[in-house]
Amino acid sequence: MSKGETLWIIPDGYIPPQSSGELTSHESVCVLNTSEKDVTVTIHAYFEDREPLMGMETIVPGRRTRHIRTSSLSADGRTIPAGVPYAMEVVCSGPVYVQYSRLDATQAENALMSVMAYPVKGSGSV
Amino acid sequence: MSKGETLWIIPDGYIPPQSSGELTSHESVCVLNTSEKDVTVTIHAYFEDREPLMGMETIVPGRRTRHIRTSSLSADGRTIPAGVPYAMEVVCSGPVYVQYSRLDATQAENALMSVMAYPVKGSGSV
Amino acid sequence: MSKGETLWIIPDGYIPPQSSGELTSHESVCVLNTSEKDVTVTIHAYFEDREPLMGMETIVPGRRTRHIRTSSLSADGRTIPAGVPYAMEVVCSGPVYVQYSRLDATQAENALMSVMAYPVKGSGSV
Amino acid sequence: MSKGETLWIIPDGYIPPQSSGELTSHESVCVLNTSEKDVTVTIHAYFEDREPLMGMETIVPGRRTRHIRTSSLSADGRTIPAGVPYAMEVVCSGPVYVQYSRLDATQAENALMSVMAYPVKGSGSV
Repeated sequence: MSKGETLWIIPDGYIPPQSSGELTSHESVCVLNTSEKDVTVTIHAYFEDREPLMGMETIVPGRRTRHIRTSSLSADGRTIPAGVPYAMEVVCSGPVYVQYSRLDATQAENALMSVMAYPVKGSGSV
Repeated sequence: MSKGETLWIIPDGYIPPQSSGELTSHESVCVLNTSEKDVTVTIHAYFEDREPLMGMETIVPGRRTRHIRTSSLSADGRTIPAGVPYAMEVVCSGPVYVQYSRLDATQAENALMSVMAYPVKGSGSV
Repeated sequence: MSKGETLWIIPDGYIPPQSSGELTSHESVCVLNTSEKDVTVTIHAYFEDREPLMGMETIVPGRRTRHIRTSSLSADGRTIPAGVPYAMEVVCSGPVYVQYSRLDATQAENALMSVMAYPVKGSGSV
Repeated sequence: MSKGETLWIIPDGYIPPQSSGELTSHESVCVLNTSEKDVTVTIHAYFEDREPLMGMETIVPGRRTRHIRTSSLSADGRTIPAGVPYAMEVVCSGPVYVQYSRLDATQAENALMSVMAYPVKGSGSV
């Protein structure tokens, strides 16, 4: 009965390389799984000038949310570099909802942005 | 004739635990009810590491908006804790429109973010 | 051939009552009309505790954009009050695209937020 | 198999004319091309008080993202002026995903905003 989608897109990814002030610059991929079953979330990162970094996996348990820090993701020991523009494809083993937020604390005072990720309709199970 | 939806999703919820400066950190779930009839809005909160907090209710009268502070919500005396990542499911007794905004005043200067909540299409009456 | 919609919703409206620093707090309802014909945009404001303020009109010429300051709107001499939470229904005589942005300069440093307004699909001509 | 759209709309464009602090005010049109083929992205700018500036082209290679600075765009030697409200139509030769973000560094501390561009469904190949 869960109504989410299994493929979500975030074109504007960027891990700010610096922090000052009280908080740390970071991005979160926020996933809500309202179903009873665990969902595997696989993130692929695309870049401007190099091959994609595919297959960074996380589990979101049933009836739970996970606010995934992009800096915590890795695949085969590779991670998303800070200070580099990129984009994300979020592929899920079951239907979920995805929002993307960034806190930029490059300067002492913070800046925030957030978007609902773009849902690919009818993406079905992948 | 009201065209809204009855189920809306907000994956990135967070009540900033601190405020400084002139304004107070807060989140608002902004609901517009353009119909003539009152709508009951029921918010369920999902967490990363504990069971969901279900059934926090508010009324939005006909031809009115309500900008609901998440810190004002409760069910059976339980409230959403500050400083904890969570997600919301917004279930409505009639069709409405929902937007989510956060003011973070952790530092003296403010940061704002806002998203349209994710509408679950064809959610019908619940 | 224009593909926009004629009814757009903005649940979180708020005119910040104060400004400091170099810029002035304001909201903009940004409308793009890619057709050849002028479009009449009629904004209705809904409140938490009073009757709606209906019928604030603006023209957006063909192949033009207008970034409408909400504080400039009026109907029968009535305007949207600052410092009061409200919501907007944007009714258009032809298909357009609508985005909503707010600059909050309550404190010396600025905070920005923006959302695509919520399109009511199949709203047709009104 | 790429599921994006070929026509995306951004009603609120604005290049902040000033910068202070460590970062430079700018806007980015962030495009993700998950297909194997290069896509040509053509941006048309619409204004409040003058004729549109049509036909600013960029290439986004297959399996790459481009975060396009609007100040870098041009057609026939003409560019988008800073400090002027405008809107964008983003026409693509193949299906992609588009997000728009703005960093305003008018004051020493930064303000950020971001929206998913508005997808024109069924826009097909153009």
